Amino acid sequence: MSELRWDPIKLHWVIIAADRGRRPRDFEVQSDPNGAIACPFCYGNEDKTPPEIFAIRPSGLPNAANWRVRVIPNKYPALRVEGELSSRAYGMYDVMNGIGAHEVIIETPDHNRTLADLASGEITDVLTAYRARYLDLRRDFRFRYMVLFKNHGTRAGATLHHSHSQLIAVPLLPPVASTQLKVARTHFSQKERCIFCDLIKFELQEGTRIVREFSNFVTMAPYASSSPFELRLYPKRHSHDFALMNDAQLAELAVALKDMLMRIKTVLSDAPYNFILHTAPPMHRRPGKPDQWSSLEYDYHWHIELVPRLTQVAGFEWGTGFYINPTSPEDAAQFLREAEM
Amino acid sequence: MSELRWDPIKLHWVIIAADRGRRPRDFEVQSDPNGAIACPFCYGNEDKTPPEIFAIRPSGLPNAANWRVRVIPNKYPALRVEGELSSRAYGMYDVMNGIGAHEVIIETPDHNRTLADLASGEITDVLTAYRARYLDLRRDFRFRYMVLFKNHGTRAGATLHHSHSQLIAVPLLPPVASTQLKVARTHFSQKERCIFCDLIKFELQEGTRIVREFSNFVTMAPYASSSPFELRLYPKRHSHDFALMNDAQLAELAVALKDMLMRIKTVLSDAPYNFILHTAPPMHRRPGKPDQWSSLEYDYHWHIELVPRLTQVAGFEWGTGFYINPTSPEDAAQFLREAEM
Repeated sequence: MSELRWDPIKLHWVIIAADRGRRPRDFEVQSDPNGAIACPFCYGNEDKTPPEIFAIRPSGLPNAANWRVRVIPNKYPALRVEGELSSRAYGMYDVMNGIGAHEVIIETPDHNRTLADLASGEITDVLTAYRARYLDLRRDFRFRYMVLFKNHGTRAGATLHHSHSQLIAVPLLPPVASTQLKVARTHFSQKERCIFCDLIKFELQEGTRIVREFSNFVTMAPYASSSPFELRLYPKRHSHDFALMNDAQLAELAVALKDMLMRIKTVLSDAPYNFILHTAPPMHRRPGKPDQWSSLEYDYHWHIELVPRLTQVAGFEWGTGFYINPTSPEDAAQFLREAEM
Repeated sequence: MSELRWDPIKLHWVIIAADRGRRPRDFEVQSDPNGAIACPFCYGNEDKTPPEIFAIRPSGLPNAANWRVRVIPNKYPALRVEGELSSRAYGMYDVMNGIGAHEVIIETPDHNRTLADLASGEITDVLTAYRARYLDLRRDFRFRYMVLFKNHGTRAGATLHHSHSQLIAVPLLPPVASTQLKVARTHFSQKERCIFCDLIKFELQEGTRIVREFSNFVTMAPYASSSPFELRLYPKRHSHDFALMNDAQLAELAVALKDMLMRIKTVLSDAPYNFILHTAPPMHRRPGKPDQWSSLEYDYHWHIELVPRLTQVAGFEWGTGFYINPTSPEDAAQFLREAEM
């Protein structure tokens, strides 16, 4: 089983996924991550994956070859669903057993189409699957946070070519979420306004970093982009929770998401990228604890973060936590606005 | 000029190096980063770099072709030495002009030898250059921190093949240093012991994560390694400041550093890596401010961090701040201990 280990000097948790047990030779670079093996995400290979958790298909039995979107448990999970949460001290360190969930959303049966290539109706199916899995996983009180992300391309960490995203539920609030939630709470408690709403309003006024505006969504290059061509996609109206989007809203989001991905694909020659869906954590009320998330629906604002992997995180970034970005977000927004798609 | 921009939601600074002004096409992957152009770091090409700042050579004029180690300003610096520090607000953001220093340490005149391949006497020269540059840069009161790092291999961010390391001085204390310094200070104020000394003692007792012990240095895999085969090299006796090492200590360190690099090279087939030298920041006393670093010499402990780049930082890591490591540090230490060199 995996372990979460605490670093008492860097103050962060690390997941030691010992189940994966990789030895020195396992890290040699494979030029074709798909190789000659049959792809487990294609039609007809449903028995090569663990049984599905969720699917969108016109009719028929689970695990039959007629799905449009399919969600399965990761065969090599970073964290496992089985077991009880427990933590203990070890010398000056702390360790917790690796409880969580690790799911894979197969976005299309077509081996060679990327998420950007799908029709917006097909992307709506993918977003519907995301919503269904969020709503289900958040019923498990062991999970404090869920992160949904996509790795596109080998250099962005994808190990299988067939288009997919991943959802990981973790038993601790991660530092990235914790910082954002605290900032949003402090801003709201001082000003009774959402910090993200303030930011969206400011950026729409300025205009130089806006890539595309829709009726209910907006795509922009962040002022302090940590890497070239980074983007954020926000709902323009305040909304703390992606999982509360209705079908019509998901359909609109699909159009905005496709637009964002097509611009990146066109301008950056199908560059590798990661995207992350940031949304409010489950609001479990824990016995004997004050309700820590009571104002979450007012102060947090869900959004999608997209980071093309054009530069390497190197010694400077790792050693300082500062990022060097050689393309200004104003230039990036202009290139992306002018994309001929 | 570069700008440091503040992200009010992620709470971090980003360096927008607009001088580098990279456009979409500039990011296309070059398979051979060295290409057909003449290497500016080789003998005879001294005029292809800015004039040297420091060098170790038997005799002769600066910028002549008989050096053993040569330090030059980076031709495309992330931060520039010229100008005064100033910061201002911009809407809800903050921005500071990009003052700093960015130097390159050319470790050998030989185009094809890596740092691991150098004799320990040659590595001593490299460490001597590091020390000299630290001592000089810290006289500039605008610089709050210096980070010395090495990117080895394209996948670790190296853009030139010829072996070199870099030293960047920054006008703000970076978050990675800030966390470590605060942790060390708190531990010392509570216990009157250095947290790093405690950690070294504990690890030497446990033994499972020790890779190699010398009289005055020790190499180990950290308990909460965030990536496979990560290492730390510590001086066993308390010392907060690398730049205070004397010549004999640098010569011993060179032996330990060569040992660490050779093990990584042997076991991981010359894998790309980053190393970072973490040492105490300059202890400038600022007028009208309390002396914030007064106990630094007791509570901080300099060390070298080495991170092989075997896995990709992907959506999960970026979106949460948690790291997934598929190789336990106990396994990594064993492979490295048993390396046949």
